[in-house]
Amino acid sequence: SSSAGTLFPLKSDSPSMIVTTTSHLQKGWCQTKPMVQQIQEEGCISAEISNNFCYGQCNSFFIPKPGNDLTDDNSAAFRSCPFCKPRKVHWITVVLQCPTLTPPIRIKQVMHVEKCRCTSQISQ
Amino acid sequence: SSSAGTLFPLKSDSPSMIVTTTSHLQKGWCQTKPMVQQIQEEGCISAEISNNFCYGQCNSFFIPKPGNDLTDDNSAAFRSCPFCKPRKVHWITVVLQCPTLTPPIRIKQVMHVEKCRCTSQISQ
Repeated sequence: SSSAGTLFPLKSDSPSMIVTTTSHLQKGWCQTKPMVQQIQEEGCISAEISNNFCYGQCNSFFIPKPGNDLTDDNSAAFRSCPFCKPRKVHWITVVLQCPTLTPPIRIKQVMHVEKCRCTSQISQ
Repeated sequence: SSSAGTLFPLKSDSPSMIVTTTSHLQKGWCQTKPMVQQIQEEGCISAEISNNFCYGQCNSFFIPKPGNDLTDDNSAAFRSCPFCKPRKVHWITVVLQCPTLTPPIRIKQVMHVEKCRCTSQISQ
């Protein structure tokens, strides 16, 4: 017996398993938001750069399936675990002036986040 | 200069960094939802058990910080990457009747999900 609303068949190698209706599913979101970042180091004049950070709520699920291997957690479920992280970054070099240090500069590498997206962790 | 709304200081070892206002933050959610699960195997009579699956949207973020190690992605950001997965499970043994097989039964271990929660992956 199927509950009200269109069913959402979860395609997989084994016969498709219908677990919920589309009405229960909500679209995940992952925003690229601007921020001002202070680059600091002891003895140096701090610098300010504009950067972005990622913030969002991605859809994740864990659906158990009969696993016959108690130890291997992976075999016992369909799972999806994306999170909101940078999709595109580049590294920028920031040179801080440090009058009291020798040499009087410090070089910092800063990851500049360009675009964020719900991305699944590639499990090692 | 701080934007409108109460500020949300992100406490950390370095001086607290204010990146967004609480109005932008939304509560994550992670539901434990009932499902009927078919336990099947070729040559056996399938059985049905009631189980639960996890589905939700957990808050994740990635905030760059000056990392001076290009290779080590971890040093270059504050990050939180929880996803909706089982918090409490137990394993149940299901015995399938398999008239055409010898022995005429198959034993399956099924993970029974009791409670789901937004849980961070403990990175190895």
